[in-house]
Amino acid sequence: MKLKTTDAYPSRIYSEPKLIERQDPVMYAKNEEQHILSQEELSFYERNGYLFFDSLFNEEEVRELSNESKRIWTLSGEENTPEVIREPGSNEVRSVFEIHRSNEVMKKLSENNQLLERVSLILGSQAYVHQSRINFKKGFTGKEFYWHSDFETWHVEDGMPRMRALSCSIALEDNYSFNGPLMVIPGSHRQFLSCVGEAPDDHYKSSLRKQEYGVPDQASLTRMVDEGGISAPTGKAGSVLFFDCNLMHGSNGNITPYSRNNVFIVYNSVHNKLQSPYSGKQPRPDYIAARS
Amino acid sequence: MKLKTTDAYPSRIYSEPKLIERQDPVMYAKNEEQHILSQEELSFYERNGYLFFDSLFNEEEVRELSNESKRIWTLSGEENTPEVIREPGSNEVRSVFEIHRSNEVMKKLSENNQLLERVSLILGSQAYVHQSRINFKKGFTGKEFYWHSDFETWHVEDGMPRMRALSCSIALEDNYSFNGPLMVIPGSHRQFLSCVGEAPDDHYKSSLRKQEYGVPDQASLTRMVDEGGISAPTGKAGSVLFFDCNLMHGSNGNITPYSRNNVFIVYNSVHNKLQSPYSGKQPRPDYIAARS
Repeated sequence: MKLKTTDAYPSRIYSEPKLIERQDPVMYAKNEEQHILSQEELSFYERNGYLFFDSLFNEEEVRELSNESKRIWTLSGEENTPEVIREPGSNEVRSVFEIHRSNEVMKKLSENNQLLERVSLILGSQAYVHQSRINFKKGFTGKEFYWHSDFETWHVEDGMPRMRALSCSIALEDNYSFNGPLMVIPGSHRQFLSCVGEAPDDHYKSSLRKQEYGVPDQASLTRMVDEGGISAPTGKAGSVLFFDCNLMHGSNGNITPYSRNNVFIVYNSVHNKLQSPYSGKQPRPDYIAARS
Repeated sequence: MKLKTTDAYPSRIYSEPKLIERQDPVMYAKNEEQHILSQEELSFYERNGYLFFDSLFNEEEVRELSNESKRIWTLSGEENTPEVIREPGSNEVRSVFEIHRSNEVMKKLSENNQLLERVSLILGSQAYVHQSRINFKKGFTGKEFYWHSDFETWHVEDGMPRMRALSCSIALEDNYSFNGPLMVIPGSHRQFLSCVGEAPDDHYKSSLRKQEYGVPDQASLTRMVDEGGISAPTGKAGSVLFFDCNLMHGSNGNITPYSRNNVFIVYNSVHNKLQSPYSGKQPRPDYIAARS
C-alpha cells in the first residue's frame, strides 16, 4: 500500500468502501457572464452531473461520423494493435482507443467548437483530450458496462489529481431505452466512492474488457440510486451527453437488432495534468491516458 | 429427423430458417358480444399479439404476491429440486417452476378471474395452466433472456399442437425501461419462425438456463423488428402483460439495483392439449409442461 499524503481521493486501499465528499467544484463557469450554456443548463449540470443535447450535430456531420466509425470497425477487426479492445469471451471489437490521433475525422470531431466551448466553460479553462474511443455495442450480442466512476480509475491508475474533467458521449445511431443506453445516477458525482481491492499490475489489459477492481459495491450503488434515481437520456444519432468525470454510470447489454455505437471524448483541464498514478504502479499507456 | 405429416409448424429440421404463415386464429372472441375486453383491446391484441394492463391487481393483492415470491426465493435457494432453475455461471435462482401447484398463493393467482376471464375470452374456450413460474431477475446481476417464441419450444419439445395458448406476466415490482423489462416484437406472432438445429435429448436441463436450440436467427429477427418495432410495456407492481404464445419476446440484463421479478402463468385451451413432442423425443417433465 503506497498512500500519497496528498491523495484527496484514496481508493482501493481500504478494506471497506467509503464515501468521501467531493473536494473540487463541479462547475467552473462564472454565473454573471453570457454563455453558450444557459443558467438553467449550468445549474442542471452542477446539480446532476450531466447535460444532454438531442441534436448538436447536423445530419451531414452525423452521417460522416457514422460512416467513419463503420470504417474503423471494419479495419479494427483485422488489426491486432493494443488500441483495439475485444469483448470478453469473443473476438468482437468492443472499443477502439486514441481515435483522435489515428483518424482525421475523429480528430476534427475532438476539436469541434460545439463540444470545446461547452467543455472549457464547464471546466473553466482550456482543455485537452485525455482519452478518446469508439464503443461498439453491437445488436444482439452487445455486453453490459457495469457501474463505475471514470475518475476513480483515472485517479488511481492514471494519476489524474483532481476532478476537473468530463466526457462527451456522441451517439452514432439513434438511441432507444431498450438498446442498452448509457445510464447515469444523477447527483452521484458529488461524492467519491472509495472502492475496495488493490488492482494488479497491468490491470488495464483485462479491465477494458471486464472491470474487476475499482468496482463500486452494491450497497453504495443502492444508496446512490435511492437518492438520485437513474436517468438514461436517449435521442437521435448526433445527440451528445456531457458528464462529469465522477458521475456513476453504466449500461445494460443489448439483445435488440439496433447497435449502439458511441464516440467518447474525454477532456481534462490543462490545470489538472496527470501525475504518477496514485496506485504507485506504472501508468497506463498513452493511448488510454494522454501524458504527452 | 422425424417429421410428422400433420406438423403445421415444423422447426429444427431445416438447414435454413423459414417463416411460415400462422395457420391458427389469434383471437377467438366473437365480435358481437359484450366482453370484459373492449373492441379496441381485442383488435389491438389480434394485431400486435399482446395487451398490457397497468393495474389489474390492487395494492394488497400485489403485496401478498410480492411477499410470497420473496419467501419462495428464500426457500428455493436451499432446495435442490428440478423445479428450481439457476443462473448460467452462478448458483443464483433464476426461475422456480410449477408454483401454481406447490404454492397456495400462486394457485389462487392462477385461478384469479381478472386473468381467467380475459384468457378464456381470447382463447374462445376454457383454459388450463400449461406452465407457471416465477422469474427472478435480480438487481445488479440479472441476466438477459434472448429472443424466442414460446410456442416454438412448446410445440417441438412439449407437443403443443396449435397456437391457442397465451402467457400472463404479472410484475411483482415496479418495472422500468432500464431494469430489463420484457420486450416484445409487435406483430411477430402472425408468422412462425422455423428455427435451425436439432435439440439434443434432455435439452431443457440446459435451455432453461441458457437457450442454445430453437434460437431465432438474427436476420429473421431484424426483419421482424423492421416491420413491427420493439415494445417494452412497463408499469407498476401488479401490472399484467397478456401475450400470444407465438409472440417473439426477450429481455436485456439488469445492472440496476431494481430487481425485476415476474410471475408467469401460461394458459392453454382445453382444445389444444399436448400430444407427443414434434421432435420425436421424450416429452419434458410435467412441471414444465402440464400433461395431467
